Amino acid sequence: MKTKILSNQEPKGTSDWLPQEFAIRSYIFETWRKVCRQYGFEEYLTPLVEYAEVYRAKSGEDIGGKELVTFEDLGGRELCIRPEMTPSVTRMVSKIYGASPKPLKFFSIANFMRNEKPQRGRNREFWQLNCDIFGSDSSSSDLEVLQLSLDIMSAFGAPEESFKLSLNSRKLLDGLLILCGKLSNEQRVSIVRTLDKWQKLSKKDLEERLSENKLSKEVITKIFIFMDCTEIDELEEKLPELADNAGLLEIKETILTLNNLGYKNVYFNPAVIRGFDYYDGLIFEVFDTHPDNNRAMFGGGRYNGLAELFGSASFPAVGFAPGDETTKLFLESWNLLGEEFIKPVEKFYLPLLDSSLMDATRSLAAKLRKEGKEVLTGFEVQKINKALEYSNKKGISQVVIFGSEEAGKKNYKIKDMKSGKELVFSLN
Amino acid sequence: MKTKILSNQEPKGTSDWLPQEFAIRSYIFETWRKVCRQYGFEEYLTPLVEYAEVYRAKSGEDIGGKELVTFEDLGGRELCIRPEMTPSVTRMVSKIYGASPKPLKFFSIANFMRNEKPQRGRNREFWQLNCDIFGSDSSSSDLEVLQLSLDIMSAFGAPEESFKLSLNSRKLLDGLLILCGKLSNEQRVSIVRTLDKWQKLSKKDLEERLSENKLSKEVITKIFIFMDCTEIDELEEKLPELADNAGLLEIKETILTLNNLGYKNVYFNPAVIRGFDYYDGLIFEVFDTHPDNNRAMFGGGRYNGLAELFGSASFPAVGFAPGDETTKLFLESWNLLGEEFIKPVEKFYLPLLDSSLMDATRSLAAKLRKEGKEVLTGFEVQKINKALEYSNKKGISQVVIFGSEEAGKKNYKIKDMKSGKELVFSLN
Repeated sequence: MKTKILSNQEPKGTSDWLPQEFAIRSYIFETWRKVCRQYGFEEYLTPLVEYAEVYRAKSGEDIGGKELVTFEDLGGRELCIRPEMTPSVTRMVSKIYGASPKPLKFFSIANFMRNEKPQRGRNREFWQLNCDIFGSDSSSSDLEVLQLSLDIMSAFGAPEESFKLSLNSRKLLDGLLILCGKLSNEQRVSIVRTLDKWQKLSKKDLEERLSENKLSKEVITKIFIFMDCTEIDELEEKLPELADNAGLLEIKETILTLNNLGYKNVYFNPAVIRGFDYYDGLIFEVFDTHPDNNRAMFGGGRYNGLAELFGSASFPAVGFAPGDETTKLFLESWNLLGEEFIKPVEKFYLPLLDSSLMDATRSLAAKLRKEGKEVLTGFEVQKINKALEYSNKKGISQVVIFGSEEAGKKNYKIKDMKSGKELVFSLN
Repeated sequence: MKTKILSNQEPKGTSDWLPQEFAIRSYIFETWRKVCRQYGFEEYLTPLVEYAEVYRAKSGEDIGGKELVTFEDLGGRELCIRPEMTPSVTRMVSKIYGASPKPLKFFSIANFMRNEKPQRGRNREFWQLNCDIFGSDSSSSDLEVLQLSLDIMSAFGAPEESFKLSLNSRKLLDGLLILCGKLSNEQRVSIVRTLDKWQKLSKKDLEERLSENKLSKEVITKIFIFMDCTEIDELEEKLPELADNAGLLEIKETILTLNNLGYKNVYFNPAVIRGFDYYDGLIFEVFDTHPDNNRAMFGGGRYNGLAELFGSASFPAVGFAPGDETTKLFLESWNLLGEEFIKPVEKFYLPLLDSSLMDATRSLAAKLRKEGKEVLTGFEVQKINKALEYSNKKGISQVVIFGSEEAGKKNYKIKDMKSGKELVFSLN
């Protein structure tokens, strides 16, 4: 019975990571992990799947809607592959919040899936760091999340001009919406979604979309003034009605404090909206300034209200989530993936040079592994020149020579493939 | 608009890993990783999802059938969450096999999903190490995979009596099937599946199932003799027709070599069948001998024919896959999860003792982090006794004291919470 031949390509929007590619991803993940731990964050993980309603509620029309990958479990309940982490980690924390000393500082590195059109920097399956603080509404916790974002960039060796942090606040956007007069919840959501597409739509389209929400010309003009501001002082001047807004004050204070701590590339940006419906305070994005990738790499913000979804008392929360693909594009564009960053591990190849030495070769391999070395052994008898050729092809730098001559003298040699030097070691 | 309140429990058959639980899983994963690297295996990863046909083909009636979690992508193609790794890694390797120096030694640590009834040691979502050698049909590569399995157990500190390795061979089972006379492919599959359930079914049920395949009483008796053997020499004696069988000889040789290398707990076991249809050579399982978990923890074997699925020339392959849940149960039962194994990381808590010191406290935190320390800072002003209380609750062993007195003297103190001792350090 001949079976049908299957494609050996991975599904659209997903990628195999062969060892060379895995090394890059692992470098990204380990760098994230290192910086999070420096700030005392603890690692957790949630399930790959959730009840779909957890994401339908607050993840927005795309991520919580048409892009959601859903299926039914044995009991007929609708599940989905997680498309992001925030609702999942909030669900998890709501189980333990009351009994835990606050604040809780948590991070995870996990894979996600969205059924969207794959594009540069955006795969259907992707990985993210999610880093969140629960149980503190202090501006110090927003600040720490921002510092951590910036320190992650530095940990990759990113020069200051290669990225910038853009700040905005949902409280400030709420202030802007108040200027729009009395709005229904639907109108608010629709306006915020229009603002979120500000840089993708034409002026005409933007005006049309805003008019659909029955906004007056005067109000629409104010929205355009708001969205055209590039500095927080300019906003204060041009829309004095917002001068006392808590969000505005927080942005001013945050930029000042970060500057004092030595972080210079921090700016106000009214076009930072974040698509998720759950944000309700400071929001931010880190932008890649490289001309090839001029886009938001990742973002985050405060989402104090989300926990109410799970029936627990509301608790304050702030976090952010960089992704693997955009980070990799950034590192490639700025030449930050050189050998000095991803150090290959030194490996040893121990060929089987004589069939009578099979057991002795295996014992030598065991000895070298016990010393902490990474040792590949040959499975078939090889001539020494074939063994050296194999090591060269595999990029293995050290070859352990153990033939009948060495066995007779109860020693073995280690040949360094770069220098060609051989050192002799005793078997005992 | 009041939103519906959602459950904060994870979906059935899945688990949140809070930091304490994550530390255990991470210890398991890092131990797997360490041993694989010692043998020169390289880490890879495949996508979370595959085209469903990749698993329908050879993963058996349960895993590749009713337990498969499937959904459609945007293009209407049937995808599934991977239920195991072997077909995926074979697909990936088939893309690069021709151009790669052989053998390829690959491992991955990944999550999987099966829509089955959750039970002790078996969740719907689970994690596995998958460790495989491609491109060698030498018995040395089977041996290495077995050694690696046993060394993983030792790396967890498992005493020799806590586990055993049971060997069988699909070639030997093929020899048994030849004794059954001419069989259709369906009959072969049905008989192997009956053998796979040998220890779960009554003798009567077994006889009935075998009879359904039109086997004579004489043949059924031989099958019972085969399945009742506990040593390979006993099998040779009782069924001399199998004495020349390549699988039998391989099992004998393997047990001998492993014994010579110092691995004593290795046995022949005819009931080791492995459910997957793709195995075609040596197969094995590692058993937990603890009375609470008397079951196979994990297994593996040779599957030379699987690559044909992907239209490439067939290539030899052998591997195994331990899971996180059974490993954890094993470690718990044998008391191998003590503090000496999972060392907590030393953390520092730096409270904010005076509101005027906010910037200086943040700078001190940055300095300590640059020294490589893991530092949590307080977000609100705290009295020192509250700070010490918080550290105690969180199990943080070091508290950094930096109040107005210390700031005046340009120093800071580190208090060890266990000994109570304080050391003074200069700020510069």
